[in-house]
Amino acid sequence: MTVNILFAAASDMWPDYERPLIQALDRTGLDYRLSTDLSPAETDFIIYAPNSAVQDFTPYTRCKAVLNLWAGVENIVTNKTLTMPLARMVDPSLTQGMVEWVTGHVLRYHLDIDWFLARQNGKWERHVPPVAQERPVTVLGMGELGRACAETLAGLGFPVTGWSRSPKEVPGITTLHGDDGLTEALSTAEILVLLLPRTAETENILNADRLALMPRGARIVNPGRGPLIDDEALLAALDSGQIGHATLDVFRVEPLPADHPFWSHDKVTVTPHIASETRASTAAQVIAENVRRGAAGEPLLHMVDRTRGY
Amino acid sequence: MTVNILFAAASDMWPDYERPLIQALDRTGLDYRLSTDLSPAETDFIIYAPNSAVQDFTPYTRCKAVLNLWAGVENIVTNKTLTMPLARMVDPSLTQGMVEWVTGHVLRYHLDIDWFLARQNGKWERHVPPVAQERPVTVLGMGELGRACAETLAGLGFPVTGWSRSPKEVPGITTLHGDDGLTEALSTAEILVLLLPRTAETENILNADRLALMPRGARIVNPGRGPLIDDEALLAALDSGQIGHATLDVFRVEPLPADHPFWSHDKVTVTPHIASETRASTAAQVIAENVRRGAAGEPLLHMVDRTRGY
Repeated sequence: MTVNILFAAASDMWPDYERPLIQALDRTGLDYRLSTDLSPAETDFIIYAPNSAVQDFTPYTRCKAVLNLWAGVENIVTNKTLTMPLARMVDPSLTQGMVEWVTGHVLRYHLDIDWFLARQNGKWERHVPPVAQERPVTVLGMGELGRACAETLAGLGFPVTGWSRSPKEVPGITTLHGDDGLTEALSTAEILVLLLPRTAETENILNADRLALMPRGARIVNPGRGPLIDDEALLAALDSGQIGHATLDVFRVEPLPADHPFWSHDKVTVTPHIASETRASTAAQVIAENVRRGAAGEPLLHMVDRTRGY
Repeated sequence: MTVNILFAAASDMWPDYERPLIQALDRTGLDYRLSTDLSPAETDFIIYAPNSAVQDFTPYTRCKAVLNLWAGVENIVTNKTLTMPLARMVDPSLTQGMVEWVTGHVLRYHLDIDWFLARQNGKWERHVPPVAQERPVTVLGMGELGRACAETLAGLGFPVTGWSRSPKEVPGITTLHGDDGLTEALSTAEILVLLLPRTAETENILNADRLALMPRGARIVNPGRGPLIDDEALLAALDSGQIGHATLDVFRVEPLPADHPFWSHDKVTVTPHIASETRASTAAQVIAENVRRGAAGEPLLHMVDRTRGY
């Protein structure tokens, strides 16, 4: 029986995904039809991005699963018409890209690269940073991305603390959880990496009180979600010197408005949500594997737990 | 019998080294005397830096070995009065610091961090770099430092080619050697790391002809030795666009003169020879172990091969 697969995402995504999806689905051996235009009643799977015109899932009565092309699902789990199983994207390239971006910016801070870039002035001013073993780094969020970043940073020699809401064990990482664990995790964080999901509990998790717990002059790297940070509190902490610098890739409103103070602040680096990008070729393989599993009645990979919201 | 150990280095190094050396030598259980002032005839070992006043080793007739505090020995192997065994420093912190510095600058280039730093202008210009798997990196020099850097970069996902004068095998690295190997190693090097020793053969190894072999726009990281690069050829290649950018930590003359064109060139980052610093605490342990070995008649660690000059 033919498996009918709807590609429901902004139209500019189809050219990137059509060929990789066909190649990956062909390899599953399934008899399938892939289209951007299927009637709801005949649709078995929906490959989905939240920028799709499809927002009401009620008519998709036969749909076995919604397979998200993005890692973040906060715009989807709030959709009450979406009652079928939902998988988020865990693209190996996406994790790889995130690890590279986080490691690059943590090393930029650790090595004071900006300090040297600003001193191309003919003056031979030696300034030797400590080795990584003397530079505690904390990662908030021990999901797929946080864990991968924490492991890579620990591999480079940094003493890494990883915090998550519920207890986790990761070899080589000091893991903490809960409110007391968060206080402890922040108290040593010379460099802090934010990779928490966006939920009601994590909104503004980095507020004025928690910024004050960090070592003076600490640096912050946020490739997670904009609302994790209380923007006003961060700006105040930067101005007071409590926080030394912040590199922010995600924002409450994106694109970040041109008049937002982050753009012009000399202690903030803005990057335009590029820390991690799904690459079509590897994402298509993850999607195809989940279609194969769904069609065979096997458990899907990377299922979203709706009670937690991620 | 008391082992007499002379500390012969610039006087400002003694305060950093005295306590770590005493602690490390105490742990060997040897009966020893450590001093900055010993007569040549009673000296058993010389802990040495080339900035020492000791330049004539002829009177040190009883000396079993010279233990260098620095990794580079090009200023010592040319000293014809130094005929006793010579060990160079292989400080684990020195390797660690070098790996961090090289990894940080390779990721800075890979992620185009300077591009983003220059665009804090309110414009949301997305630009997503490739993943590391699509960014070939070449390391020239597969000694202690080059090998450690190559392995770390390969661990991050970069396809790494390592070149050395004589054949070497390093798991996970494409190793090449000899003149043909050098041509091949340069031809794929989107990012090139120079970690060769300074010898007659390596001087100006990166000349105009070899720069021309590299992919257009390639980036160069030199934490090795200044004379590895033909400065004029590099400036010409930067101006023509053949080379995209260079980060240089070492120079023919140090400190780099304030009027040297590298300082003001917008495609050059100068750092003041800080990629790798010997840390006294770990270096002292290496020195103490070699004193113990020398006193016991065991082979020294990290012996310099004078026929090769490193």
